[in-house]
Amino acid sequence: MGRSRVTGVDEDVVGRIVVVGTGLIGTSIALAMRERGAEVLLTDRDAAALALAVELGAGTALPDGASAEPADLAVLAVPPAAVAVTLLDAQKRGLATAYTDVASVKALPLAQAAELGCDLSTFVAGHPLAGSERSGPGAARPDLFLGRPWALCATPEAAPEAVAAVTALAKACGAMPVEVDAAEHDRAVALVSHGPHVVSAAVAARLTAADDVALGLSGQGVRDVTRIAASDPRLWIGILSANAEPVADVLEAVATDLAVAASLLRDGSEGAAAHVADLLLRGNAGRSRIPGKHGGDQSAYATVQVVIPDRPGELAMIFQAAGVAGVNIEDVTIEHSPGRPLGVLELSVVPEAADRLAAELRSRGWSVPGR
Amino acid sequence: MGRSRVTGVDEDVVGRIVVVGTGLIGTSIALAMRERGAEVLLTDRDAAALALAVELGAGTALPDGASAEPADLAVLAVPPAAVAVTLLDAQKRGLATAYTDVASVKALPLAQAAELGCDLSTFVAGHPLAGSERSGPGAARPDLFLGRPWALCATPEAAPEAVAAVTALAKACGAMPVEVDAAEHDRAVALVSHGPHVVSAAVAARLTAADDVALGLSGQGVRDVTRIAASDPRLWIGILSANAEPVADVLEAVATDLAVAASLLRDGSEGAAAHVADLLLRGNAGRSRIPGKHGGDQSAYATVQVVIPDRPGELAMIFQAAGVAGVNIEDVTIEHSPGRPLGVLELSVVPEAADRLAAELRSRGWSVPGR
Repeated sequence: MGRSRVTGVDEDVVGRIVVVGTGLIGTSIALAMRERGAEVLLTDRDAAALALAVELGAGTALPDGASAEPADLAVLAVPPAAVAVTLLDAQKRGLATAYTDVASVKALPLAQAAELGCDLSTFVAGHPLAGSERSGPGAARPDLFLGRPWALCATPEAAPEAVAAVTALAKACGAMPVEVDAAEHDRAVALVSHGPHVVSAAVAARLTAADDVALGLSGQGVRDVTRIAASDPRLWIGILSANAEPVADVLEAVATDLAVAASLLRDGSEGAAAHVADLLLRGNAGRSRIPGKHGGDQSAYATVQVVIPDRPGELAMIFQAAGVAGVNIEDVTIEHSPGRPLGVLELSVVPEAADRLAAELRSRGWSVPGR
Repeated sequence: MGRSRVTGVDEDVVGRIVVVGTGLIGTSIALAMRERGAEVLLTDRDAAALALAVELGAGTALPDGASAEPADLAVLAVPPAAVAVTLLDAQKRGLATAYTDVASVKALPLAQAAELGCDLSTFVAGHPLAGSERSGPGAARPDLFLGRPWALCATPEAAPEAVAAVTALAKACGAMPVEVDAAEHDRAVALVSHGPHVVSAAVAARLTAADDVALGLSGQGVRDVTRIAASDPRLWIGILSANAEPVADVLEAVATDLAVAASLLRDGSEGAAAHVADLLLRGNAGRSRIPGKHGGDQSAYATVQVVIPDRPGELAMIFQAAGVAGVNIEDVTIEHSPGRPLGVLELSVVPEAADRLAAELRSRGWSVPGR
């Protein structure tokens, strides 16, 4: 202990880490730490995944059965159900002086680790809030964690050195460490991640029976609601199973709200409609509570809309005009225009810059409605 | 009849239209038709909304009680429940030779119009699939309908001239007319719009009780799922009430899937997990059926990711580089980076252009992971 050389952004000493599991998250951590100058040793039960991660420059393969000096930190990037057994094995082998995991669920792996007799003084459970609809080492990016929250669930048994090592890892990957109790974490992600994931899948599942005419009437709303329904079911069933009770609580509450809304709509009375409107109002209130970019209130940005022909160079000219006007684009979306060579670009900027940007764009010939 | 001078994009004769209701949709249609050179007369029960629409250049106020020559087309841009009575009134006043509406629901207004004894030979129900979380004339844009589907539900009674006039309106606004039966339309929008809207609200409603730590763990997933939950409940309760049965069918089916998933998760057996995984797989299948931009398959695009500092001019340089490489950006998103001055830009391009774009960006010093 006491040798946590894996360090934060402000220090330049970075040590040696072992990454167990070279999927999307494990390989992304490895790539990020390699960029920070760390020595990274990789291992995975799947030889092909390991080989690809090595080829991508994520590190070198951990030698079999070697009794090397323990690494400063071992990152167990395995599914939730495998965390405890992988930790026990890693500790028996003396892989590192501190350990962490990256599973989306925290309470169950911690309980299983305690039950298996793992050393909880060297283990600090972690969860980087980053991901992708895609998976595997091929989708890994060293910047996956930039600016993202990284939950740390230290138990009372955890040694300060282990907490420091895992906190330093999160910072070195560009993330923001957030200390939180494991049970609280699991209830939180059930609300803001796992529950919405299943709901998105349930909405998308309805579309399997829709005809092409119905699908042709799809707008941006259903596209947004169902985007995460494209994720890998094999990964997600492990996450949902390991956080079963909190996720079930969320799904039941949503299911009840929807069943009640359905019954109120069939009722058809004005009083019934008022109750449905109340659900929509609660939706307004809940939506407004999600923090915006940079931790700010998302309603703090104004939007400027521009009609753009769908051809190379058009976006460049618009963003160049924004640069000339000294306006920073906080967010950008392109409204899809099925079947037509035109789109509507929506630029989010600080309110005081909106009119300046609109004037600049209009002076260069673009149509900027509503300003 | 036989004077449908409101015409499509390929003709240059545009006549006179009346817009009844100067909200977001009515004012946007008026603005679009003004840009096409039409004479537009406006009316609204809300004098302030009418005055704002006139001020925005959407047209001139319809004179009271005037017995002017009928317009070529009257657009009834009123809530679903008001369509039939507004149509009856407009026809009694002889406002136009053809009529349409823009309500998100079609069967109920048509049935009510028949019941009230409206002349169904001059009426063709319509629904432009465009909107915004915002509402009112202030949010109107002449380009709101560019490239969007515009459902037309002509009954057997509708005269060909009326169908031609309404089709021409949709085309003149830049939309794609889609002929569809009213009941089929209502079931379709329940699936791809109204149902997902209530589900989004129900997920967002759960967040009202969440603590700040939980909300701090929010990622892009919950943001996307709940975006449309920010919409105006007053508008939406009218839409949902008028399409009650089809929406209730969708909500019940989703509620059942969620309740079953909750119960399976609590069960905890492997067999139960397999059933939850089946819902996720159906979600994959349904999501993949939504048409992409330009009517194409959305999976037809490749994505190129670039890490960008959050400062003016950076996006301009990236899009300029894309222009130099001759690569058209089909879609663009910026991953939010709460609390940090960095973001990840994701560019969607045709697959054959992805490596070329990545090489161009890399040659100019950007980090382009994974390619």
